[in-house]
Amino acid sequence: MYPQSLQVLIERFRQLPGVGEKTAERYALSVVDMSQEDAEQIVQAIMDVKKKLTYCRTCGNLTEQEECEICADPQRDHKQIFVVQSAKDVLAMEKTGEYHGVYHVLNGLISASKGIMPEDLTIDALVKRGKDASEIILATNTTMDGETTAMYLDKLLTEQCPNVLITRIAHGLPFGGMLDYADEMTLAHALSDRRTMGSKE
Amino acid sequence: MYPQSLQVLIERFRQLPGVGEKTAERYALSVVDMSQEDAEQIVQAIMDVKKKLTYCRTCGNLTEQEECEICADPQRDHKQIFVVQSAKDVLAMEKTGEYHGVYHVLNGLISASKGIMPEDLTIDALVKRGKDASEIILATNTTMDGETTAMYLDKLLTEQCPNVLITRIAHGLPFGGMLDYADEMTLAHALSDRRTMGSKE
Repeated sequence: MYPQSLQVLIERFRQLPGVGEKTAERYALSVVDMSQEDAEQIVQAIMDVKKKLTYCRTCGNLTEQEECEICADPQRDHKQIFVVQSAKDVLAMEKTGEYHGVYHVLNGLISASKGIMPEDLTIDALVKRGKDASEIILATNTTMDGETTAMYLDKLLTEQCPNVLITRIAHGLPFGGMLDYADEMTLAHALSDRRTMGSKE
Repeated sequence: MYPQSLQVLIERFRQLPGVGEKTAERYALSVVDMSQEDAEQIVQAIMDVKKKLTYCRTCGNLTEQEECEICADPQRDHKQIFVVQSAKDVLAMEKTGEYHGVYHVLNGLISASKGIMPEDLTIDALVKRGKDASEIILATNTTMDGETTAMYLDKLLTEQCPNVLITRIAHGLPFGGMLDYADEMTLAHALSDRRTMGSKE
């Protein structure tokens, strides 16, 4: 058995997502081998994140201010709202450079199996700000929970924000994807969401 | 781009062995979602490891005392020394319950490519305590560096501790291993280290 303090650190590392016994052991032993300074920097970084980071009061994105950079940017189209599951998705979308509206981060998905209900998410805030929007784009992942959440939001927003266009991001083949590798659901979506090409569009 | 404090934590997590950009991002975001208490426990565990853990003055194993539990145990055979690369190997061997001697942890392997020389390891201490031993078992991994280190130690210990039996752990097929999946080196070792079976032994 490892010394007590090492054993405790292994258990703590196991709380990180997807980390098993062997990986936690490797991480803990790497901390042992680390310089005192490097270890202190990790500790400081964890404490800083807990102290400084908060959720944007408008969209729920992660920020160190009251409002995130995107919501505070007057250049962006504040009437177009892109609804995602988590802050990670905001970053992924921002990397494309293709979107110039604002976001709304649900901080989760409705999930019967995990016991996550609509009231656990930032849906109230979305309905409230959604009333002034021109378009709300539902961009939850195409998983079971993502689809459920999108359907729930579509119904709710159509009722509550009747003058707003509610859209869903397109489903289909990933770029570079091959037909024979795609699953049936993806192919079915790619077919039903097909569009005319080029000059005919 | 993520807020500064989150970006810093992602970079810190990347210092853990085998952690890439995506994994570091997932870990950092899980810290954001963690309760304040859970985050503080990780921080405390890291600080405890850096403060309390040290290397056993006799064998180089990890311990919170001056001497590790194994070296301090009068029941063990202190004349049989099992030489390994790291503290992790001690734990792996202890789990077998088959070994009742003591250990010597080199804290690394001789490696030309990484610039690790014999003087960077605990070899001096091994030679010193080895003089009183009856057997020294070289159990470095069967990698290139592990083999190099074993060969170096064999030569050195044969000279410096002439009355001590120097042995190397057996190489061969892993338990449950299949011939057609084994690499050539393993098969060659398994053949040359073959032994007579049962009553003929």
